Amino acid sequence: MKQNEKIKIGIIGYGNLGRGAELAVQNNLDMELVGIFTRRDPATIKTATHHVKVYPYHDIESFKGKIDVMVLCGGSASDLPKMSPEVVEHFPIVDSYDNHAKIPEHYERVNEAALKGGNTAIISTGWDPGLFSLNRLLGEIVIPKGGTHTFWGEGLSQGHSEAVRRIKGVKHAVQYTVPIESVLADARRGKGENLSAAERHKRVCYVVADEKEHKRIEKEIKTMPDYFAPYDTTVHFIDEATFFNEHQKMKHGGFVIRSGKTSPNHQQTVEFSLTLESNPEFTASVLVAYARAAHRLQKKGEIGAKTPFDVPFALMTNKTTAQLMKELL
Amino acid sequence: MKQNEKIKIGIIGYGNLGRGAELAVQNNLDMELVGIFTRRDPATIKTATHHVKVYPYHDIESFKGKIDVMVLCGGSASDLPKMSPEVVEHFPIVDSYDNHAKIPEHYERVNEAALKGGNTAIISTGWDPGLFSLNRLLGEIVIPKGGTHTFWGEGLSQGHSEAVRRIKGVKHAVQYTVPIESVLADARRGKGENLSAAERHKRVCYVVADEKEHKRIEKEIKTMPDYFAPYDTTVHFIDEATFFNEHQKMKHGGFVIRSGKTSPNHQQTVEFSLTLESNPEFTASVLVAYARAAHRLQKKGEIGAKTPFDVPFALMTNKTTAQLMKELL
Repeated sequence: MKQNEKIKIGIIGYGNLGRGAELAVQNNLDMELVGIFTRRDPATIKTATHHVKVYPYHDIESFKGKIDVMVLCGGSASDLPKMSPEVVEHFPIVDSYDNHAKIPEHYERVNEAALKGGNTAIISTGWDPGLFSLNRLLGEIVIPKGGTHTFWGEGLSQGHSEAVRRIKGVKHAVQYTVPIESVLADARRGKGENLSAAERHKRVCYVVADEKEHKRIEKEIKTMPDYFAPYDTTVHFIDEATFFNEHQKMKHGGFVIRSGKTSPNHQQTVEFSLTLESNPEFTASVLVAYARAAHRLQKKGEIGAKTPFDVPFALMTNKTTAQLMKELL
Repeated sequence: MKQNEKIKIGIIGYGNLGRGAELAVQNNLDMELVGIFTRRDPATIKTATHHVKVYPYHDIESFKGKIDVMVLCGGSASDLPKMSPEVVEHFPIVDSYDNHAKIPEHYERVNEAALKGGNTAIISTGWDPGLFSLNRLLGEIVIPKGGTHTFWGEGLSQGHSEAVRRIKGVKHAVQYTVPIESVLADARRGKGENLSAAERHKRVCYVVADEKEHKRIEKEIKTMPDYFAPYDTTVHFIDEATFFNEHQKMKHGGFVIRSGKTSPNHQQTVEFSLTLESNPEFTASVLVAYARAAHRLQKKGEIGAKTPFDVPFALMTNKTTAQLMKELL
């Protein structure tokens, strides 16, 4: 493959997700990373790999024709609602917008700007929304009479870790969300579809703090409304060394289980699960795969906003139809 | 929804799979079953549900315009290679052609006939090929540097059951293919990609026979070349009542595991699995979902042969884009 045939990728935003996207582009030999765009001072960005150029975000328009797809790595709370419509007027984009309740609204805004700019956008890629959404849909397609169960974890929750860290006397803390095994087992037999998140998951905290504060801190965690009070919560106090040795990975994962009957006597179960040692690297890896699809859709003239539901897997791979049939079908 | 807006389905072939397709159409409220077509005498067919009409296969052409999609439920060895190209000249079709090595050849034959007839064909749907193929592809897309591991079972193998039944003195027998737990566990950590089927699975047989024949039968099973000799094989002798109580379901399933690294320190694992109490009913359920997609593709003018890799999930559901975003994304 000649260099100039590679898909030219730009990354916008350089936190954990942007760093993951940088690594993901290197894992895909048919892609090249043209640059990273940031609203911070580009000189302050230390990239994960060598020879990667960093540019100011406000320069993106000067890269028209030099970048095939922009991979948006901002957050869903304040970055993407503005940035996705803004960028798609000039480039095909993929994003990982994950505020489930507001996805329809985000879709409309992005679709309008994408049509105006004549570009393709694939929104809400990643794993939830994204691969988990695909499996929720697939489950109900192939087992129309049944229940769908989504579990998250075992995984590190940023929001809950921060809530613990805000408690007085807490030096360091992480919180893991853990599916309850017996409820998982029930889901696989088609039971418990309507349980709440608190009935399906437990919360496990690892906290560094002075010993004389342990009792009070444990109580404050376990009684914290919404975050911990409705959950089966366990608090482990550990020393600082253990914290830095064992609790630095942003691991995550989860399960989508569909179980139901195709006839009165036959229970059928489909399960999809992820076990991730780095949530941002995996999410970015999915984003970059959808960037390949966005490039293909753009070339076919299929502009406007799409979701993972609209994208056949054949558009996400670099393999030909003949290879796919021979190697994978 | 008005009756005349339903997708009109025909089923060709009425063995276990055809019977499963009949039940699957009833589980999808946007579909109606126009009829079952058979090469046997239609009067000899007893359908699973009432009011289903059975017609001779040679009459299919008279149903042009009355059936939207034909669901082909013949076998891959002798039925589908001839039948899929034959039928697609007159109707959109879906099939579950599963002779992996010959899929490219089948694809060519069906594609040529489909283009000639101006119809859509989706071939090799079901679960392997089908949903497992999709997950083998997805795995390598999202984890480009890693290994893919397919396991089958625990499930009943028709071919191996028949091989046991052919042994002198065997009254009844079933054979289950069972993934070896420790190898499954290794796959989840990215180990053992190149192991043979015999190194990844064991075989468990349940046999009814006279007690004085047990020793000889067990030896004949365990030393049978290809079928059992390379495998860890266990033979249980049971009585006839147990056989009929506990071994009548055509259960099956399996695992597709992709595990690899997105960066040197981060192992990522994606797993898809099926636990099926009725293999033919589930396979048929997948076929019928792809029939919905074939109908949509036909209406869009996308004729010719496709595989599951070419079909976005949005085409397989009856839900609108707005519903999908709200309920499942």
